Amino acid sequence: MELRIDRQAMVPVVQQIVDGLTEWIVQGEVAPATRLPSVRQIARSNLLSQSCVVEACERLVAQGLLAVRPGSGFMVASGLSARCGPAGYAVGGAGDAAAGLRLCCGVLPESWREPDDLSYAIRQVARTDMAGLFNYGTPLGLPALREQIVKRLKGLDIKVGDDQVLTTAGASQGLDLIVRALFKAGDCVLVESPGYAPLFELLRLQGVRMLEVRRLPDGPDTEALETLIRSFRPRALFINSHHQNPTGSSLTPAVAKRILMLCKAHDVRLIEDDVYADLHHGRGARLAALGDGHGVIYIGSFSKTLSSSIRVGYVAADAEFIAQLARIKTVSSLGGSGFCEAVLASLLASGAYRKLVQRLRQRLATDRAAALEALEDAEWEVFGKPAGGLFIWARPALADEARLHERARGCGVALSPPDAFSPSGERSDWQRINVAYACDPRARRFFQEGMADRPRVF
Amino acid sequence: MELRIDRQAMVPVVQQIVDGLTEWIVQGEVAPATRLPSVRQIARSNLLSQSCVVEACERLVAQGLLAVRPGSGFMVASGLSARCGPAGYAVGGAGDAAAGLRLCCGVLPESWREPDDLSYAIRQVARTDMAGLFNYGTPLGLPALREQIVKRLKGLDIKVGDDQVLTTAGASQGLDLIVRALFKAGDCVLVESPGYAPLFELLRLQGVRMLEVRRLPDGPDTEALETLIRSFRPRALFINSHHQNPTGSSLTPAVAKRILMLCKAHDVRLIEDDVYADLHHGRGARLAALGDGHGVIYIGSFSKTLSSSIRVGYVAADAEFIAQLARIKTVSSLGGSGFCEAVLASLLASGAYRKLVQRLRQRLATDRAAALEALEDAEWEVFGKPAGGLFIWARPALADEARLHERARGCGVALSPPDAFSPSGERSDWQRINVAYACDPRARRFFQEGMADRPRVF
Repeated sequence: MELRIDRQAMVPVVQQIVDGLTEWIVQGEVAPATRLPSVRQIARSNLLSQSCVVEACERLVAQGLLAVRPGSGFMVASGLSARCGPAGYAVGGAGDAAAGLRLCCGVLPESWREPDDLSYAIRQVARTDMAGLFNYGTPLGLPALREQIVKRLKGLDIKVGDDQVLTTAGASQGLDLIVRALFKAGDCVLVESPGYAPLFELLRLQGVRMLEVRRLPDGPDTEALETLIRSFRPRALFINSHHQNPTGSSLTPAVAKRILMLCKAHDVRLIEDDVYADLHHGRGARLAALGDGHGVIYIGSFSKTLSSSIRVGYVAADAEFIAQLARIKTVSSLGGSGFCEAVLASLLASGAYRKLVQRLRQRLATDRAAALEALEDAEWEVFGKPAGGLFIWARPALADEARLHERARGCGVALSPPDAFSPSGERSDWQRINVAYACDPRARRFFQEGMADRPRVF
Repeated sequence: MELRIDRQAMVPVVQQIVDGLTEWIVQGEVAPATRLPSVRQIARSNLLSQSCVVEACERLVAQGLLAVRPGSGFMVASGLSARCGPAGYAVGGAGDAAAGLRLCCGVLPESWREPDDLSYAIRQVARTDMAGLFNYGTPLGLPALREQIVKRLKGLDIKVGDDQVLTTAGASQGLDLIVRALFKAGDCVLVESPGYAPLFELLRLQGVRMLEVRRLPDGPDTEALETLIRSFRPRALFINSHHQNPTGSSLTPAVAKRILMLCKAHDVRLIEDDVYADLHHGRGARLAALGDGHGVIYIGSFSKTLSSSIRVGYVAADAEFIAQLARIKTVSSLGGSGFCEAVLASLLASGAYRKLVQRLRQRLATDRAAALEALEDAEWEVFGKPAGGLFIWARPALADEARLHERARGCGVALSPPDAFSPSGERSDWQRINVAYACDPRARRFFQEGMADRPRVF
């Protein structure tokens, strides 16, 4: 197996192996349960270290493309359609490796990242902050950082006190703590469909049952929501209020108020995941702002803007619940990394973070407008035009799923698996398009390719 | 309430507030459920920011000294003995704040930390490693770091392949992932008594029942172990094989072999937590080495030696189980911090880490010998003389618990609560002594104080 590794590329070698193996599985239409050549063989024939090959294989196991059988190495996953790309929530930030442009990617391209301010802040903390260098983080998080977060929330009309904010290692830890604090196996919660795949996995891990609410361009379908609430008495609703992943859509104030009313009336806990908040100029309707602190649990993050490696997110909620999360955080992580928090606090205090998000918003706005135009030219159907965030949700006139993925590969574009965003694994021909990748010529060619197949067959 | 805050001290202000409040609760013998003055009042009268006061109170909530009631602020915890100090597993690394010398502390004093190499490695990664700065960590962890870990394990006679090591955010995440992967509510496991309090909390959080095995100076009591295994069929045994927390004792080869045999015969999973491994020159009997990879899950960490803030630990086990942990790690943390892992990999590759642990071992050996001598002079009973690690477990001739804590306060020394290391909350007059604090004159005075009360009353 030859993998075409480019050691000069910005893309890490492991990601290139992941992409190469994905290509081998997907384009080669390899049958499920087919054994991979041995790690040693792959490493030798491509002049790679075995540990890089193992790492790449493990990523593909985590993504569900490969399976592992002890003693007999890696094989193509048996539940896998031979025609799907890498998982929709692939965690790597790699841009354009061998297997194609990551048009479906969930984070900013590496080429968009700005190292200067971050690197400076890191060096400052490393030079001057003994506590940041050595100590466990504190249960609630660094006071200086939490003060900055309280100020930022005020800017979104979310009024919280000092004892109502807890820092986390990215929003992921926030979601994890909340799920562990609130639910036990057999509990039932509402999630949006399409929605955020790692949340579905997390709920499955805890044995929590999911009820799907269709996401519409102005928020979750409130009629369906009411029916589900009345029928199943779910304990909570998870919602991406703004620039939702994957649809890019945002709550309108009317829908937000209706949701708040429904949830309050039926004692449904609201968990508002707002990790894309900083990728938009405007204010918008936040449940945590409208709810006036009553029962809404709010999640924020700096991973989508600053860095996914310096992992800092936060949860804002009532003080009692925050204290409960702090206890689980202490027990499960001994407080997290004070270093990452000190770096963030410094970037927030100096204004460097504010300027960074201004530049990102500007650049995303330009690319988003261009991407929407390109999609319109190519007669794709767009699911509500997003005003901020990273994603556009759209589908081509060509409705045949297999054909679509074949065309994408032909254009050097990687798409999400058709079932990547559905809590129940339902397949869809809608695509999550990361606007930061959408101006690449490969993406443009891919958008246009479908034109040949019109008129659309329903 | 006046807190005596010293803004020039090395000890962070929040830690000073924690210590001051602890002193107020403990020395003032405040009744359970007594309300604290309001956060605003405490902040004003001590010229502190409210967020620092809240953070300190939250730490005390996490430690079980304070409770929070929404709307009415903080109060002294109702289940609390008025005579106990800060929790045994207090996560702060603070040294000698107002409330006293942290003789019971679980980590190295800040004054022992060596910032130069760590700071240099951080600055190098910040300057040169774009992937480390920005990307999510990978499911198994950075390949370069895992290669180094495999080499280090070989030095302990633990032979594992590339696909058998997973990095974690400190050993805490390792324990957390293992508990989530293996157990469900109602399961039953074996833990050592005395033992590591955060593990007990973690197991309680998951609803796992604990069976206590007494820790003896050569390892767990194997007779009791066999009886418990035959009677209750527990699913696993958690064990600190070397320099155990809190007793400082290590497994002998004979006990290790007996444990392996018992656990293999009765299908009990062995989880070997070896986070103090680097604080000792010798090799010693590791279950993971003797077990030859069969079923032993091994946990390591760099938090005890290098930094608790640059959080890196690892788990070594069979490849299938490691892949299972990697999936939970991905879902619950999106892979962790690539930055911290890149820093560790650089320090391991350059040899700086090896030299650091050599210096630490030397310094600890000197202080340990001096502490053992001082305890012998003062006629304390010592639980087996440890040959490595951070702790000595000992008790004074004076057996009255209340008197002991009173004397400690009089000498400016903070002790663990009497029930800090027992899974079932049993009280004990044995003390965990951090050898790095034991040469402080306050500790010496405290050791000697008991002499007046001899002969010991049984």
